[in-house]
Amino acid sequence: MPVRRNSHAALIDDLVSANHILCAEGIVDGFGHVSVRDETHPERFLLARSMAPATVTVRDVMTFDLDGEPIDAKGRKAYVERFIHSEIYRARPDVQAVVHSHSPAVIPFGITGTNLRAVSHMGGFLGLSTPIFEIRAAGGPATDMLIRNRTLGAALARSLGASPYALMRGHGSIAVGDSIKQVVYRAIYAEVNARLQMEALRLGPINYLTAEEALGAMRANDAVIDRPWDLWKSKVRKRGRRN
Amino acid sequence: MPVRRNSHAALIDDLVSANHILCAEGIVDGFGHVSVRDETHPERFLLARSMAPATVTVRDVMTFDLDGEPIDAKGRKAYVERFIHSEIYRARPDVQAVVHSHSPAVIPFGITGTNLRAVSHMGGFLGLSTPIFEIRAAGGPATDMLIRNRTLGAALARSLGASPYALMRGHGSIAVGDSIKQVVYRAIYAEVNARLQMEALRLGPINYLTAEEALGAMRANDAVIDRPWDLWKSKVRKRGRRN
Amino acid sequence: MPVRRNSHAALIDDLVSANHILCAEGIVDGFGHVSVRDETHPERFLLARSMAPATVTVRDVMTFDLDGEPIDAKGRKAYVERFIHSEIYRARPDVQAVVHSHSPAVIPFGITGTNLRAVSHMGGFLGLSTPIFEIRAAGGPATDMLIRNRTLGAALARSLGASPYALMRGHGSIAVGDSIKQVVYRAIYAEVNARLQMEALRLGPINYLTAEEALGAMRANDAVIDRPWDLWKSKVRKRGRRN
Amino acid sequence: MPVRRNSHAALIDDLVSANHILCAEGIVDGFGHVSVRDETHPERFLLARSMAPATVTVRDVMTFDLDGEPIDAKGRKAYVERFIHSEIYRARPDVQAVVHSHSPAVIPFGITGTNLRAVSHMGGFLGLSTPIFEIRAAGGPATDMLIRNRTLGAALARSLGASPYALMRGHGSIAVGDSIKQVVYRAIYAEVNARLQMEALRLGPINYLTAEEALGAMRANDAVIDRPWDLWKSKVRKRGRRN
Repeated sequence: MPVRRNSHAALIDDLVSANHILCAEGIVDGFGHVSVRDETHPERFLLARSMAPATVTVRDVMTFDLDGEPIDAKGRKAYVERFIHSEIYRARPDVQAVVHSHSPAVIPFGITGTNLRAVSHMGGFLGLSTPIFEIRAAGGPATDMLIRNRTLGAALARSLGASPYALMRGHGSIAVGDSIKQVVYRAIYAEVNARLQMEALRLGPINYLTAEEALGAMRANDAVIDRPWDLWKSKVRKRGRRN
Repeated sequence: MPVRRNSHAALIDDLVSANHILCAEGIVDGFGHVSVRDETHPERFLLARSMAPATVTVRDVMTFDLDGEPIDAKGRKAYVERFIHSEIYRARPDVQAVVHSHSPAVIPFGITGTNLRAVSHMGGFLGLSTPIFEIRAAGGPATDMLIRNRTLGAALARSLGASPYALMRGHGSIAVGDSIKQVVYRAIYAEVNARLQMEALRLGPINYLTAEEALGAMRANDAVIDRPWDLWKSKVRKRGRRN
Repeated sequence: MPVRRNSHAALIDDLVSANHILCAEGIVDGFGHVSVRDETHPERFLLARSMAPATVTVRDVMTFDLDGEPIDAKGRKAYVERFIHSEIYRARPDVQAVVHSHSPAVIPFGITGTNLRAVSHMGGFLGLSTPIFEIRAAGGPATDMLIRNRTLGAALARSLGASPYALMRGHGSIAVGDSIKQVVYRAIYAEVNARLQMEALRLGPINYLTAEEALGAMRANDAVIDRPWDLWKSKVRKRGRRN
Repeated sequence: MPVRRNSHAALIDDLVSANHILCAEGIVDGFGHVSVRDETHPERFLLARSMAPATVTVRDVMTFDLDGEPIDAKGRKAYVERFIHSEIYRARPDVQAVVHSHSPAVIPFGITGTNLRAVSHMGGFLGLSTPIFEIRAAGGPATDMLIRNRTLGAALARSLGASPYALMRGHGSIAVGDSIKQVVYRAIYAEVNARLQMEALRLGPINYLTAEEALGAMRANDAVIDRPWDLWKSKVRKRGRRN
């Protein structure tokens, strides 16, 4: 179980930073979202109202229950796809934070069924394979591709299984982690790993990380996770001051 | 028929913003243009004078009739290719806004005859295929590639047909929509979709969106179109303040 | 013969702007250079002292004769490769400006012998083929790849022939034009065309511009060359003010 | 032996600049490091404490001995992988500076066993081949991929041999040089060369630089190494002032 050093206010501050970081690093644009489990009420989670991540402030953070229903809406509109978050938190007690994005480098893997896996130590958390969620299996051939109810959210959570990352065919991806820092790291470095794997596949057969190498690398990177987080945070703060 | 909440001044403001957004998002450079149908005179449309989109101001917006002739030139020079806009507005009463650009990711599809189609829900509006306009069919083997008269404009509009998007071989593309927001969205996400499709084609056969999925996704995205628009607009405003 | 509206001071100002633009647009980095023929002494040309283009000021501009010798060195060090410029001005009386760069998209064409040619109207000036200069033919198998004397410069000018652009194998490229604006346009859009051609070659056989289309497009773009120039200039000015 | 014009303070200033430059040029992100041999104590080297390179200041620079042990820790935490540096300085008396990074373009070469070599004069220092370090050969199939002790550092130094650059399979790369300026140049232009080689390999067989061309080009570039350095330095200074 992760250490929870943050007060609730600090957790919300980190969630706001995560929104800005994910946009600054090219993981989200006008779309995509990041949530965190409420550290004092594990059956709740925090997620911004329906808006572009780059412009989220503390006042935009709402609280939801595990059915995906807002507890404190106060007139604020929720993301249609909040069920991604609620059903993952329900299925995965180990998960403390979730990112959903359309980051571009991973999408070609999902729509061609190519196995996304660790090619470099920074992507060690990906291990030997990444599940791909096919919405047609759960929702039939004529969905609008969105996870707009509990049923689809639960099907996505089943595809994710015990993995840290899953592709959504024709849509995007989800990353999960034991903290906001870790899930932001994973969302960013899954994208980096996908770019490296894509380029390498053009050169020839890849010498992938072994399961042991991937696990070892994941643990080593988790031990220094403050380093990239502090850099990303300082970049969005500077940008904020300049604007 | 689209709701028209904007006064004429607000429409012009949005058109100016669209010019700046399209440059900031890499869809236009020194070339390319965006127009909107005059909401009070449907047989007219608004388009900047011949200049780089990034530097367009309210004072640069001219009004044209459906022959592509300026109504209020006042010494201002019109784009050579204004007939792209006039003939599409003539042929397509449903169209309220048009973007013409040379955005780079879609051009390789046009010059190789590769079918650009929806690979992800953000590009749902592209559906199952995108028409390609071949200027040689209308103008012969020795044009300068530009849509510099009504005849070529009408041929382009025929190629477009009822589609939201068309490629122009060896030149660029056009996007049409029922509002400035929608056409800007389409110009940007056609480019995103093309990059994804290009990368995926290198990995193997693509699991494309079905017609139903594409249509559903298009409607779902249209319902939240203010979200990316507000983000794009805030970005060009910040940039403007900083300079 | 090109119209010469600029006074000598304005010509130098444009040359300084061209240096900054080429860096801002990714054509040059710490290396590369741009020159202009002296409009009052056609047997002379203007070129910055040996330095990074981004930091060139009016005080850094030197005058050279057609042997590549500085006329007003005043202790300033000249580029080793100034003979690129001097020999092209000698061989091509029609040329008023020259850019040498290592811009990345065109280099793969030179080192694989792939024919760089117009795939879109913006690259119309490239026509049906681009010559490739092989320094081994003129300098043997053990040069340092640089055009460091008149002999190599003359060989390069012969490879260029009457073309607007040439590749230098394992090194970079040269663009020539009838004005600073035109040569900057060509340096930038050769790069754009190379990126488009590279991507398209992966999709399948390309429907290239015909000779007539390329020529027509070149003339059409030359007629509006102030438009991209003004945009590029405004961008480097804004950047200058912000720093 | 390289000329040492810098006082110790100037050397530290250059090391801090190198940290910032490598981040600004996309060679390092939150990870990666650069060191320099202590010019007055060749059995020591200078390296920042464990932190993101972009935020390194003079106060963060520590001194290490050739066993990788800090001499002046003062509570500061050292990089886990400092043994990359210590063992290279031990094995290579000619080396005055070392960069370790995960820069993305070279990694696909390492994981596919593709030979990275000079395709353009700017990458001349790469010569005809680049060694690839396989950590499994030294550390077995279950390392965490990091060079976290002297044994692994020594194995890496043996793989490097007399080369200026080496790939680390599934991890990144190292560049070495006779000065901070040279090693930064090499870290940046190895990346540029890798991008060019990758693109060219898709077009067809490459006409590589000969050994003589590569050597000549390396010497020619070393002679003007202040030029890119001054540009990179001015860019990070401007950025610093703006923030």
